[in-house]
Amino acid sequence: MNFIITGHGHFASGLQSSVKLITGFENALVAVDFKDNMSSDNLRDKLSDQLKINGKTEPTIIFTDIAGGTPFNQSVLLKNDNDNIEVLAGINLPVLIEAVLSQEGELDVLINHLIGSGKDSIKKYDNQRNKKVRDQNLDDGI
Amino acid sequence: MNFIITGHGHFASGLQSSVKLITGFENALVAVDFKDNMSSDNLRDKLSDQLKINGKTEPTIIFTDIAGGTPFNQSVLLKNDNDNIEVLAGINLPVLIEAVLSQEGELDVLINHLIGSGKDSIKKYDNQRNKKVRDQNLDDGI
Repeated sequence: MNFIITGHGHFASGLQSSVKLITGFENALVAVDFKDNMSSDNLRDKLSDQLKINGKTEPTIIFTDIAGGTPFNQSVLLKNDNDNIEVLAGINLPVLIEAVLSQEGELDVLINHLIGSGKDSIKKYDNQRNKKVRDQNLDDGI
Repeated sequence: MNFIITGHGHFASGLQSSVKLITGFENALVAVDFKDNMSSDNLRDKLSDQLKINGKTEPTIIFTDIAGGTPFNQSVLLKNDNDNIEVLAGINLPVLIEAVLSQEGELDVLINHLIGSGKDSIKKYDNQRNKKVRDQNLDDGI
């Protein structure tokens, strides 16, 4: 399984650096930044070059920053030529870590798993809930 | 309303660059990177300095990369001293753009709105669904 990340500005290289720091995997994820001096065609060429390196037989997930943006749209254009590509939008760090740590398995199954755990990972710190847990622990004499 | 983003490596500055590119707002979001040469205390000091600049009366949302990570944990420690702070985890670009574009309103309402729209924004490109829409459009003669 190959993983590519692309997004506006330094979204891709920024998240790639976080994945490296947390997992220690240096080459698990290829980052393609859509910088402000690039055209849509430039971006598609860079993504296409990367897909050529990977070959068409290996499944690839392209992680993108936001649905409807240029990085997402150009990735979808490339997917239309290659059934072995899936394009995800709204990517956060938990999705990437989950992907890098669980590379094996069917593409469809992994995609659904990643979407579910990505949604679950968006949350606020809830000190009321944590207080309740602390109180329960105190009641139990722990 | 003040917005701070923090995360491992260049997560924060990477996403900040994306927000600037898409919204054109230069100063909507302060980025505090947790680089690999920094300690947890270094990070908390940097976040704390930023909160002091903002003052305690203005509500602040601290956007973080992943629940349980150092940037999240240090943000929670700062929240414990200041009720006007909320800490969110699992942040993606759609959440940040939504926040920057809808700065006004109650903190609680905004937080719940951001969590909902963040979860909705994580999705795969579904060409079957798009094909169905195209077919329906063809049936309707559009």
